[in-house]
Parts: sequence; C-alpha cells; structure tokens
Amino acid sequence: MGRTSTARERLLEATCELLGTRGYSAVGVAEICARADVRKGSFYHFFDSKQALTLAAVDSHWTTQRTHWNHVLSAADTPPLARLRRLLDDQAEAQRRAKRETDAVHGCLFGNLALELSNQEWVVQSRLAEIFDEQIAMVQLVLAEAAAEGAVAADRAGRVTARAVLAQLEGIVMLAKLGNNPAVLDDLWATVRLLIGC
Amino acid sequence: MGRTSTARERLLEATCELLGTRGYSAVGVAEICARADVRKGSFYHFFDSKQALTLAAVDSHWTTQRTHWNHVLSAADTPPLARLRRLLDDQAEAQRRAKRETDAVHGCLFGNLALELSNQEWVVQSRLAEIFDEQIAMVQLVLAEAAAEGAVAADRAGRVTARAVLAQLEGIVMLAKLGNNPAVLDDLWATVRLLIGC
Repeated sequence: MGRTSTARERLLEATCELLGTRGYSAVGVAEICARADVRKGSFYHFFDSKQALTLAAVDSHWTTQRTHWNHVLSAADTPPLARLRRLLDDQAEAQRRAKRETDAVHGCLFGNLALELSNQEWVVQSRLAEIFDEQIAMVQLVLAEAAAEGAVAADRAGRVTARAVLAQLEGIVMLAKLGNNPAVLDDLWATVRLLIGC
Repeated sequence: MGRTSTARERLLEATCELLGTRGYSAVGVAEICARADVRKGSFYHFFDSKQALTLAAVDSHWTTQRTHWNHVLSAADTPPLARLRRLLDDQAEAQRRAKRETDAVHGCLFGNLALELSNQEWVVQSRLAEIFDEQIAMVQLVLAEAAAEGAVAADRAGRVTARAVLAQLEGIVMLAKLGNNPAVLDDLWATVRLLIGC
C-alpha cells in the first residue's frame, strides 16, 4: 500500500505536533500537509477543514492517552493512590522527555487548545470540555476507591477534589511550558497529596 | 487634544480585548486598528510590530493588575489569609463579571498567551514568565506574614506552596473559560485552603 495508505495518520500526527509547538491559528493546512508529506488534494479527501482535522487529532490523541490512563488507573495489584501518583508522574515524565528530545516543554495539547480557542471554535471547545470531564471522572473514580479503603477521607473523594487535581496538573504544566522548565513538575505529587489529604 | 491623543491607549485596550477573546495568532494589526479606531499609519507611529504592541499590552495589563494585587495583599488592617482570600475572590469575580457582561469567560490574559505562544514568541514568553514569578512572590510574601502570625505552618509558606496556589488559580480559570462557566471558581478558596493548610 505504501505511504498513501498512512496519509490520514501522518496528517493526524503532524497536526498534534504542530498544534503543540505553534498553536491552532498560526498553523495552516499547507504547513500541515508539508509536514505530513501529503498533497493538499489528498488532505481534502480525508478532512473538510482545519477544524475537522483538529477535532480528529484531538480525538486520536485522547484515544491513545485514555488507553494509558485506564491502564494505569485500573492496575488491580496497586493501591488506588499509588495508581494516581503513577499517572501524575507519567504526565510529568512526558514533559521532561519532550524537553530532553526537542528542547521544548510542549504542555498539554488539550490545555493549549482550550486557552487558545475558547470563545471562537465552539465545536472543538465542546469536545475538549468532554475530555476534561472524562479525565476528572477517571480521577474521581480512583479517589473513590481510595476512600473505600480508608486511604482518603470521603469528603476528599468527590468531583470538586478530582477537578482540583486536574486543575493543579494543568496549571503546573502551564508554568513548565512557559518557563520551558519541567523541574516545576517535581513537586506535583506532594502538592496533590495536600489536595486529597493523604 | 481629541481622540488622537488617546490612540495609544485605545490600541492597548483593543489588544487586551482581542487577545482575550480571539488569541494572538488569529488577530492582525488591521483588526486591532479597526477596533481601536486608529489608522494603520498611526499604529506604526506607536509600535514596530504586533509583538511590540502585545508586549506593551501585557505590561499595561499587569501594571493595572499589580496595583490592585498590592492594594489587596498589603491591607494592613486585614489578616494575611483574609487578604489572600480577597485576592482570589476578586479573580473569580472578574470572570463572573465578564460572563455577565459579555456572555463569555475571558480567562487570564497571561495564561492564554502563555499556552498559545510558548515555543515561538520568546520575548513575550519571557515577559509572561517574569509576571508569573512576580505574582508567585507576592503570594509567598502574604503566606510568610500568615506564618509569622502562626496562621499557617512555616513549611506551607514557601515558594512551592505559592506556586501551587497560582497554578490552581490558572488551572481552574482554564476550566471556567473552556466551559464558559464561572461556577467552577466557587470552590477556589476552599481548595487553596487545602494547599496552604488553614
């Protein structure tokens, strides 16, 4: 089948990469096609618009990430809070790896798009909101397991706490990206422990 | 003097507004000039480029905000933690007001730019990093006052805690902006109390 058969995947990969390093408005279809080594005519065979491609790239990124989150958060032989810590450690490590390999902390694709696009691209925004809701629900579930084992108090195992954990992750990743310095992520777990009281 | 004398200020105001609602890359000099009712020729009398204008708009916004932060955080007749709470309540109220008046949560100008521009506009990025550092230092100072009065433990009054407070604010404002829903800010102070242990 050769390269043509992977054109759609290459477009999605190039989009995730360019959205991470340059943002939505700064990147055009021509640049995405060039990076993906796909002709513009082929692009419109797969996607109607940059918005449609962005939605597909967001979905593709979340499908991969959700599989990883589910794997880590449901590891049956590990206590719930150790799973949550592993998840947060993995997020921090992803930023450190980007810094090592590309010399740039890329941040969170969803957070980057959330702040650039809110108020103007409602379709993408609404998909991002669903993804964050899903992430909060996943954290809430593992907190509920921890509460059932007595590892955290029941009043720290609800949606407000889970949302605060996600907000802390996004806020610290923002500072890491801005300073291009993943070291600020070193204290993430210690900070999250304060939020959940363990 | 008429409108011409305020052209620079109008450009800065229009820039803050358009950066908040549409982002950096999506907005051009022509649109900023139209919004500010300033001719393009006059624009280049004041600013060399969109980047220079953005830097000036960021500085202008921070100058105003810093005055407010200093006023609130140094209120001598108010206990330190009550000052910090007042500051955070004010940030939440600003997002609620934007929602009431414009039907859109605008988020934090600095956070929005931080995630859109990191990795590409180093001059703006470095100014934003300085501003966040200054904000963290201001929060750290009021936490140190609280620790001196015994209102918080000394090990919760350092830079790591102050940074976590800022990260929580930015992360929650991101979720408020994304969902166009300022209600998620209602729990901000309760969450920050967990971080500082009071």
